Amino acid sequence: METDFVNWLLARIPADPRLEVPPGDDAAVLRPPAGRRTVVTVDMLMEGTDFILGADCPARAVGHKALAVNLSDLAAMAARPEAAVVAVSLPSRGGDALGRGLLEGIEALAAEHGVTLAGGDTNAWDGPLVISITAIGSVMPGVAWRRDGARPGDLLVVTGAFGGSLLGRHLAVMPRCREALAIAARHRVHAAIDVSDGLTLDVSRMMAASGTAAVLDAARIPIHPDAVRMSRLPGDGRTPLDHALADGEDFELVLAMPPDAAQAAVAAGADLPHSTPLTIIGEVIAGQGLFLRHPDGAQTPLPPRGFLHDFAG
Amino acid sequence: METDFVNWLLARIPADPRLEVPPGDDAAVLRPPAGRRTVVTVDMLMEGTDFILGADCPARAVGHKALAVNLSDLAAMAARPEAAVVAVSLPSRGGDALGRGLLEGIEALAAEHGVTLAGGDTNAWDGPLVISITAIGSVMPGVAWRRDGARPGDLLVVTGAFGGSLLGRHLAVMPRCREALAIAARHRVHAAIDVSDGLTLDVSRMMAASGTAAVLDAARIPIHPDAVRMSRLPGDGRTPLDHALADGEDFELVLAMPPDAAQAAVAAGADLPHSTPLTIIGEVIAGQGLFLRHPDGAQTPLPPRGFLHDFAG
Repeated sequence: METDFVNWLLARIPADPRLEVPPGDDAAVLRPPAGRRTVVTVDMLMEGTDFILGADCPARAVGHKALAVNLSDLAAMAARPEAAVVAVSLPSRGGDALGRGLLEGIEALAAEHGVTLAGGDTNAWDGPLVISITAIGSVMPGVAWRRDGARPGDLLVVTGAFGGSLLGRHLAVMPRCREALAIAARHRVHAAIDVSDGLTLDVSRMMAASGTAAVLDAARIPIHPDAVRMSRLPGDGRTPLDHALADGEDFELVLAMPPDAAQAAVAAGADLPHSTPLTIIGEVIAGQGLFLRHPDGAQTPLPPRGFLHDFAG
Repeated sequence: METDFVNWLLARIPADPRLEVPPGDDAAVLRPPAGRRTVVTVDMLMEGTDFILGADCPARAVGHKALAVNLSDLAAMAARPEAAVVAVSLPSRGGDALGRGLLEGIEALAAEHGVTLAGGDTNAWDGPLVISITAIGSVMPGVAWRRDGARPGDLLVVTGAFGGSLLGRHLAVMPRCREALAIAARHRVHAAIDVSDGLTLDVSRMMAASGTAAVLDAARIPIHPDAVRMSRLPGDGRTPLDHALADGEDFELVLAMPPDAAQAAVAAGADLPHSTPLTIIGEVIAGQGLFLRHPDGAQTPLPPRGFLHDFAG
């Protein structure tokens, strides 16, 4: 029953000095860190569309991912994670166990990133599992990374490697929060975005917002071993590079940085938390659109590809 | 298509000085009001469970309600509404028109209460409409109303009238934000809650949180004309008072106030925004549980009734 589950949930949430009124009231009251801005983002995941519950995707993994994709958005703003609120619609049958699993996944990641769980809304219905998390972060005034600040001459720097996330990384998302804060503290970044829907699609969004174009170097895109594995699956018919450019759900960061800052960040890369690699994959130029520079130096238009949620009018 | 819809949506959102980075980036950046706490709450509504789309419940009404129930939670904390983020899962067929309708309802109410729309997540799926709104408010340190502060001797004061909300008020929710701020500025309030699930159920929650009991005066419960209309429906078999005590979705406030403050607030009631009536309906006593005092002075136990979301383990 809802009441029991909510009471179980409230009892598990650790006390946090950031909470003036903890969850369990009509709303939570947070003490915002002095002098900082509030950063807010929301993501909703739906069973059957974003995940299929089963042995390789238990509720715990869904809870982890639902918070992780939000923290990835905070990372893309160079914001420090602070709090999260969670709304769920649980199937009437088995909802209690599902809810507990979700919370275990959320709790573990929240603890890792210093996120306090500030509230929630638990519902039951005769439908699939839906979870919506709103994450709240903080950042000093005027320094949040935006996606519209890329300038011609900037280099494009990425964390990690791309492609084949469907083989498992799309669930075990590692949001790049610590990396973002470490880079923001040391290097100049003109623009940032996280790769949720596809490397080319998300880079094209940054370029469109900035009024610029980009050239990506085919030979420099960090290709994840999963992209190689996927390209070898029977009937796949795509190269590892195709996967890296278009698969999405990598939840890595793309940064547009002045060349000296980019070089310095890559050189100092080994200092990053988790030793996350940084790689220069291309450059920002004047114009519109994306281009791929091939190893022979030839350049071709690169249509943005990735995941879009389609609905008919 | 998602991109067109999101662009349409972003273009409609008015600029707001509270936004350092407006919606459309990975996250929004808000300038929190200096010296105030951040209040946060979330509510999710699901088609088929919380509403049935149709001629008497268009998407616009759903958007209104989804924001209104959150603002009601802010009112119950005496918080000033500041911002909201909206996550939706739209059915693949007709999702575009639904989304526009939802946003119209949200926008109108947001404008009325000074809420800036700070972001969202728009999804499509082969499922019913699900909408989750997170509302953010602000309040001075230490003054947020809580539900656990009621004390024996306090009087219970309510805004508005109760019962029969299903005849339409459950959609056309008027969150009592302005009333809450006006009362908080002038009168001492020990505890507050908004009535979402049922007057007796929500009062019992306040009493349980406060470690107190309450006696409600049957003759003083403000009964809404809709409660009378519902009790006259064929086969209803319940009194108007039954409806007032248990129907829920009234979204009125229940306040526990010291007697002098309660009397003063009721006497000054006509000064409230919208001339919302204030009524003393009972008192807080030591003990546990709820009791109903009948017109003849007799007192009987009053089992909390209202709406609970049930799910099986």
